Amino acid sequence: MPIFRHRLFGIRELVDELAFRAPARLAVTVFAGVIGLFAILLLMPFATADGEGASFVDALFTAVSAVCVTGLVVQDTATYWSFYGQVVILAGIKVGGFGIMTVASLLGMIVSRKIGLTQKLLTASETKTSRLGDVGSLVRVIIITATTLELSIALLLFPRFFVLEDNVGTAAWHSLFYGISAFNNAGFVPTPDGLVPHVGDWTLLLPIALGVFIGALGFPVILNLQRSLPRPGHRWHGWTKRLSLHSKLTLVTSSVLLVAGALLLLVLEWTNPRTFGPLSVGDKLLAALFAGIMPRSGGFSTVDTGAMHESSWLIQDALMFVGGGSASTAGGIKVTTLAVMLLAIIAEARGDRDIEAFGRRIPRDVLRLSIAVVFTGASIVLISCVALLQVTGLPLSKVLFEVLSAFATVGLSTGITADLPDAGKYVLTALMFVGRTGAVTVVAVLALRDRRRIVRFPEERPIIG
Amino acid sequence: MPIFRHRLFGIRELVDELAFRAPARLAVTVFAGVIGLFAILLLMPFATADGEGASFVDALFTAVSAVCVTGLVVQDTATYWSFYGQVVILAGIKVGGFGIMTVASLLGMIVSRKIGLTQKLLTASETKTSRLGDVGSLVRVIIITATTLELSIALLLFPRFFVLEDNVGTAAWHSLFYGISAFNNAGFVPTPDGLVPHVGDWTLLLPIALGVFIGALGFPVILNLQRSLPRPGHRWHGWTKRLSLHSKLTLVTSSVLLVAGALLLLVLEWTNPRTFGPLSVGDKLLAALFAGIMPRSGGFSTVDTGAMHESSWLIQDALMFVGGGSASTAGGIKVTTLAVMLLAIIAEARGDRDIEAFGRRIPRDVLRLSIAVVFTGASIVLISCVALLQVTGLPLSKVLFEVLSAFATVGLSTGITADLPDAGKYVLTALMFVGRTGAVTVVAVLALRDRRRIVRFPEERPIIG
Ligand SMILES: [K+]
Ligand SMILES: [K+]
Repeated sequence: MPIFRHRLFGIRELVDELAFRAPARLAVTVFAGVIGLFAILLLMPFATADGEGASFVDALFTAVSAVCVTGLVVQDTATYWSFYGQVVILAGIKVGGFGIMTVASLLGMIVSRKIGLTQKLLTASETKTSRLGDVGSLVRVIIITATTLELSIALLLFPRFFVLEDNVGTAAWHSLFYGISAFNNAGFVPTPDGLVPHVGDWTLLLPIALGVFIGALGFPVILNLQRSLPRPGHRWHGWTKRLSLHSKLTLVTSSVLLVAGALLLLVLEWTNPRTFGPLSVGDKLLAALFAGIMPRSGGFSTVDTGAMHESSWLIQDALMFVGGGSASTAGGIKVTTLAVMLLAIIAEARGDRDIEAFGRRIPRDVLRLSIAVVFTGASIVLISCVALLQVTGLPLSKVLFEVLSAFATVGLSTGITADLPDAGKYVLTALMFVGRTGAVTVVAVLALRDRRRIVRFPEERPIIG
Repeated sequence: MPIFRHRLFGIRELVDELAFRAPARLAVTVFAGVIGLFAILLLMPFATADGEGASFVDALFTAVSAVCVTGLVVQDTATYWSFYGQVVILAGIKVGGFGIMTVASLLGMIVSRKIGLTQKLLTASETKTSRLGDVGSLVRVIIITATTLELSIALLLFPRFFVLEDNVGTAAWHSLFYGISAFNNAGFVPTPDGLVPHVGDWTLLLPIALGVFIGALGFPVILNLQRSLPRPGHRWHGWTKRLSLHSKLTLVTSSVLLVAGALLLLVLEWTNPRTFGPLSVGDKLLAALFAGIMPRSGGFSTVDTGAMHESSWLIQDALMFVGGGSASTAGGIKVTTLAVMLLAIIAEARGDRDIEAFGRRIPRDVLRLSIAVVFTGASIVLISCVALLQVTGLPLSKVLFEVLSAFATVGLSTGITADLPDAGKYVLTALMFVGRTGAVTVVAVLALRDRRRIVRFPEERPIIG
């Protein structure tokens, strides 16, 4: 009898079963619950600097933006919220970022196991009896790795902030906030005007950019790198052979997008008097590098995004849609999804039967999954744009930018978010939630289906293109 | 010796070999040559109504727009060009439309044969010795079918134009022009203000809409329909069984897009005082039906597209990107490409191994071809938008609309084309040419590659989404 069996296994195995049977639904429910909790915490009167409390829509928007590590804000983080409010936002980022990495890694793990691949994410051996044991092990590794990297960034930032602030407490708080916000690709800024006053400040911007880049690689890549990079004193020769195909695809695609984005923005904004124009050549390069990293999906900005050319917005739109690495705190369709589509096109152009990369063959069903992710994403963006255009009457360039920023949880803004009517804020709130939980659950639900079928239909070819 | 062999076969076989070895390059070269010829014809001083002749950029733009059956205009067709100029434009449409259908059908034929499918487009039997015999047969069928349909639309239009114009010659000219322009999805209008003065005129608009719809299905579907529809007096029962998978996919997807587009535009523009607002409910329905058909890719308009909401533009943007049927005079990525992607997602969601439709299995390599077409198209649109934004400084909503209209050879306009600087006109000229010849040649080049390969790499799975 099933009940008896469950009782025999105990409560731990029952939760275990639930989590592994409907993991996507469980993840979305927990995520919504956490957001609700943080919204309540931000509704407290003492959460705002003036002690009068935020409106419901602003509290909800900020909670969703923090927990989804988006970074779009309807109220200035540094001035509108109290210190308590800022602590709540930072806690939301930390909890949200940790939750996203855990759930995405976990689902990736289940999917990989279900379709018969050895599960490589964990140190835990495959012989453990309870699958919750694996989860516990995963959670520990993620917490330790994430916190170590966040604190490292904070430590790198502290000396500079100490010089700037001349106060140990404030400098430590700002370093910690930027460390967590950067690694989790959250894009929230605890300083007035964010990073705009520091546009030429290499010592401040490089650690933040590095934190964003590493965070956007995704947990599986970070762990893979950590185990593949040679220990001090050991030889570097051949270390890349220890990298997985997923890590290689993520690293190469992220780097190419970074360089391409930075170069394009550098060219387009070189003479813009309101962005790169007044900067020295060195500062222009730093600003372009920074702006090239941020759409994937850190969301910090050192120049006024709203003052950029519309062509620059469009470049960033494309970069934001792609987003970062799988099982990372970054959003978008993910760099591996783009890579698989490009590799499929290359295979088609070369007439190869298989899709190949780095001496490996990519399974065919991965391509179908990629198409589903891209098509679903594009449809969500299109519908949201139509909705927001109707609600606000704002120009498409700004609406598209903000929609992509919310969908891919980037947090860059042309400046319209703060002035949106409540209906517009709710559209973006829903979009941030869907963008955050959507891809992960869609992939999980699709990949967990059974693939067996007995009857095959006769083949017939439609004409394409 | 090869030379001897060629001489033995004769000149006919030599051309035959050339056409079948590099068909895509040959097609593009011939196409460019035809455009050059029509540009020269339009540069004649007597081509314009004032007898002073057009500028080079305007003549080139108009020649490309006519031969690519796009319908974007930098000068009003009815008032700027002389009767001679209008005849040249109409000839360009007829030659271009015929060329596109022939080349696309021919390439489809070669591709199908190369990959081992029975060639079903032609009446010519497979036993003919010269392959040029097949081509001649295809050309005859296309000319007869196209001309018959164009004249049928013209005949349906003539009574109404006779009432409107009260002059047999003018009425016949306008009927013929609209007949050819509609069936070829050209979007050129010989009457001042186009069809805007006739917004509620069912007798005029329905034949034009029907012509555009049939023309956009593509020649393979038209021929398949012609052979599948029951002769007068015969039973309709089971006639759809004679339709190919390609025809069914094209008909269903085209109809769904038509209804969805018409409904969305009806809702969004219902109260717009500058478009559907002042119309009666019946006229609103007709205008929405008409506007729902035109993005795929007729390009006629009965209301001022420039006065529509930006949300309506975005809906039309999406519809224009999809375009019409394969081997038709319509542009875009084609409805079957969209259908294959959607079917792949459905298969993925249901956990099916095969992509299926109407009791048929769609070969896997078709999906890769679809992705190549969509990705190439999206990249071209993105690059063109960035270029046109930089050149003109116009808002994204209008630039995106015009770029998609040119890429998918639609011809709808928000009104910016006529006022573009020369650089902008050249961008759109290049885009119309690439949009017209691109998909066909890309598909041909990709599909004609050899698919054999001996060594297979080991399989490894990246994480998606
Ligand atoms: K972000
Ligand atoms: K057209």
